[in-house]
Amino acid sequence: MISRADCLERDAADSLGHLRSQFATDAIDAQQLIYLDGNSLGIPPRTVAERLQHVIHDEWASGLIRSWNTAGWIDLPGRVGDKIARLVGAAPSELVVADSTSANLFKVLHAAMAMVRADAPWRRRIVSERRNFPTDLYIADTVARAHGFELVLVDTGDVPSQLDERLAILMLSHVNYRTGQLHRMGDVTRAAHDAGGLMVWDLAHSAGAMPVRLHGDDDATTPDFAVGCGYKYLNGGPGAPAFVWVNPRHTARMDREGWRQPLSGWMGHAAPFDFRPDYVAAAGISRFLCGTPPILSLSALECGVDSVIAAEAAGGLGAIRDKSIALTDLFVALVESRCEGHGLALASPRDAGERGSQVSLVRATDGYPIVQALIERGVIGDFRGPDILRFGFAPLYLRFVDVWDAVDRLKTVLDSRLWQEPRFSVRATVT
Amino acid sequence: MISRADCLERDAADSLGHLRSQFATDAIDAQQLIYLDGNSLGIPPRTVAERLQHVIHDEWASGLIRSWNTAGWIDLPGRVGDKIARLVGAAPSELVVADSTSANLFKVLHAAMAMVRADAPWRRRIVSERRNFPTDLYIADTVARAHGFELVLVDTGDVPSQLDERLAILMLSHVNYRTGQLHRMGDVTRAAHDAGGLMVWDLAHSAGAMPVRLHGDDDATTPDFAVGCGYKYLNGGPGAPAFVWVNPRHTARMDREGWRQPLSGWMGHAAPFDFRPDYVAAAGISRFLCGTPPILSLSALECGVDSVIAAEAAGGLGAIRDKSIALTDLFVALVESRCEGHGLALASPRDAGERGSQVSLVRATDGYPIVQALIERGVIGDFRGPDILRFGFAPLYLRFVDVWDAVDRLKTVLDSRLWQEPRFSVRATVT
Repeated sequence: MISRADCLERDAADSLGHLRSQFATDAIDAQQLIYLDGNSLGIPPRTVAERLQHVIHDEWASGLIRSWNTAGWIDLPGRVGDKIARLVGAAPSELVVADSTSANLFKVLHAAMAMVRADAPWRRRIVSERRNFPTDLYIADTVARAHGFELVLVDTGDVPSQLDERLAILMLSHVNYRTGQLHRMGDVTRAAHDAGGLMVWDLAHSAGAMPVRLHGDDDATTPDFAVGCGYKYLNGGPGAPAFVWVNPRHTARMDREGWRQPLSGWMGHAAPFDFRPDYVAAAGISRFLCGTPPILSLSALECGVDSVIAAEAAGGLGAIRDKSIALTDLFVALVESRCEGHGLALASPRDAGERGSQVSLVRATDGYPIVQALIERGVIGDFRGPDILRFGFAPLYLRFVDVWDAVDRLKTVLDSRLWQEPRFSVRATVT
Repeated sequence: MISRADCLERDAADSLGHLRSQFATDAIDAQQLIYLDGNSLGIPPRTVAERLQHVIHDEWASGLIRSWNTAGWIDLPGRVGDKIARLVGAAPSELVVADSTSANLFKVLHAAMAMVRADAPWRRRIVSERRNFPTDLYIADTVARAHGFELVLVDTGDVPSQLDERLAILMLSHVNYRTGQLHRMGDVTRAAHDAGGLMVWDLAHSAGAMPVRLHGDDDATTPDFAVGCGYKYLNGGPGAPAFVWVNPRHTARMDREGWRQPLSGWMGHAAPFDFRPDYVAAAGISRFLCGTPPILSLSALECGVDSVIAAEAAGGLGAIRDKSIALTDLFVALVESRCEGHGLALASPRDAGERGSQVSLVRATDGYPIVQALIERGVIGDFRGPDILRFGFAPLYLRFVDVWDAVDRLKTVLDSRLWQEPRFSVRATVT
């Protein structure tokens, strides 16, 4: 049986351990918090505070409008995009930061539908998992209704049965937000392509937490579109701008055909400073930009992305993934050994190779008050109705001893039945 | 003839003069800059730096994910929206902050098209000015093409001739970005309505610089939709989120009919924390929200909006408008008297009642190097091709003496032919 001392030893030997010092953990440490919600909102890198002061004082207040050139604001969506591209196996100039994940998904679904209409107009189905992240489904549902497509939602295991001559687009999250289940990107992409469909990935819960290879071994295993989120494992701050990647074969075709995305704002124009009345799409991925990007939030995102890139010298995303697996395996083992008899079961895949950087537990009843009582005891996870207790493990700043302490407090909450106090049943707006 | 001393006297007597101290002008003062580009990017309020430190340290680093509730992040789009509503003559809960102006225009054009399709399907024209802000035209062009509408662009004087039985939507900027021409919102709205069309206003260059009355005297003079920008006279910072207002008669109808806007992300869902797979639009204006808002940029925007609201005790937007007119009238008078013979002519309306808070000059040639030389002399205006020299007058922080000094430097640049030095002809990316 692993002990707390064993965990401290593992931390001491952790080749990524020094990276925790990048993050503003003082407040967490002072509160003796264990933060297992980095999959919802990463912790700020220490550099953010200074960077934002610089943006406010030196770029905005002093440089003023000139900073679009002199401080490179105009290039930020591409510059930060190129950095994220390194983290998701894409090439430079294939990915930009823009808008929200939802808006970017809207754009790529339009692009995918336009391709399907041109190449295989009989294909009318957008297929996804019923338990995919709801906002992705909301966007897909509206897009499908508006354009004569059909959104088909099935259980995860039934996805393969939907890959037929009716398939237009397969839209999945690389890691499921509820269960943490990790799809094999290459295999699933190949299956969608073999069926004649296009593949759209949402990388919200994988980018920054594991190696992602958008460029597969060949065209068959290389997806068509991807979107992702800046504020989870990329540590970009609340509501950080999102990103969008498009297979360069497709942007080349869009260039040839002059295709424009529906949100055709000035940032995606070929010559925005000519102030022409007519829209001409910029070449390549830049056509997926829309309006003026929020520079303060975008600058913070760059700090967050840099915090992941900083791991490159210590093994990069491969080492991050190894630690992530070690953390989640430890959590599963400790919960199963120390919290037995309390009705908790594993809702995530047991095989770490099929699991993202999170562990979800399921309990038939009272998951909500248990999570609330645990939060009061200083362990922040979250509840996803009706029955999921969700814990994220951000490998850049979590320690093995944090996992031990988290399970120890969970055991206390369960053993003492602390969660049965009525105040823990009152729902807040956001959990 | 007015002298510099006269200007200093006017500043001393200015009832809004004390509001300049709200802004981080130290860097400008140290550079002896005169900033006549607040219509592109406002100066930061002094409160922004501290507010962002608070958001980073206390809300993000310390509150972490809990801050969506405890720091009220979830309410920010509505809370800042309610404040902007006060500045544009709208009621609380009619306006939200979201996304970019371009994305919001996309949403309201979809809403307007849906209404026209239901009520007057023969109407297929979206009418606007050829010289309207290009990104508005880009969005309208793409929307029109995708949905069988026609974008009709005419010269400003020809707009009335387009208000006929074919009109679906009249889309105008309240103040034109090039010339500063101010439309009479009530009269133009009534004319669009009399023709049976819907009225969409872009308030980018008026919100925060003058009283705007979205609620007119009656239904006929009350427009249907409005969008606007956070980073010009609202001082919200580079790329600050934008806003969207919808006539409450229309949102009530949307509620009855369950209408959803195309960017149907989670923030616009009726019950986002139920994590249901199906989309149900939130009631009222909230349905126009999409993805997670960029909290850092949105917090800065609140400081900017507060800087305008702070004028309420000193006469509010009426006093701001009076000062704006005084500043622009002074600029026109000084340019015409002191810079005579240099080929400059007034491109803005001479009547201040028809002019926004900017003055545009036109010169047949060499406008670009003249603006560049002027910038080097510490007067920041901008050039809008092919021939417009544009100067914005943000009444919250500009002084009468700034206007005097700006014209004095312009005169020096022109008299000394400084702008003829070759380096001023090299175009930067953004002007």
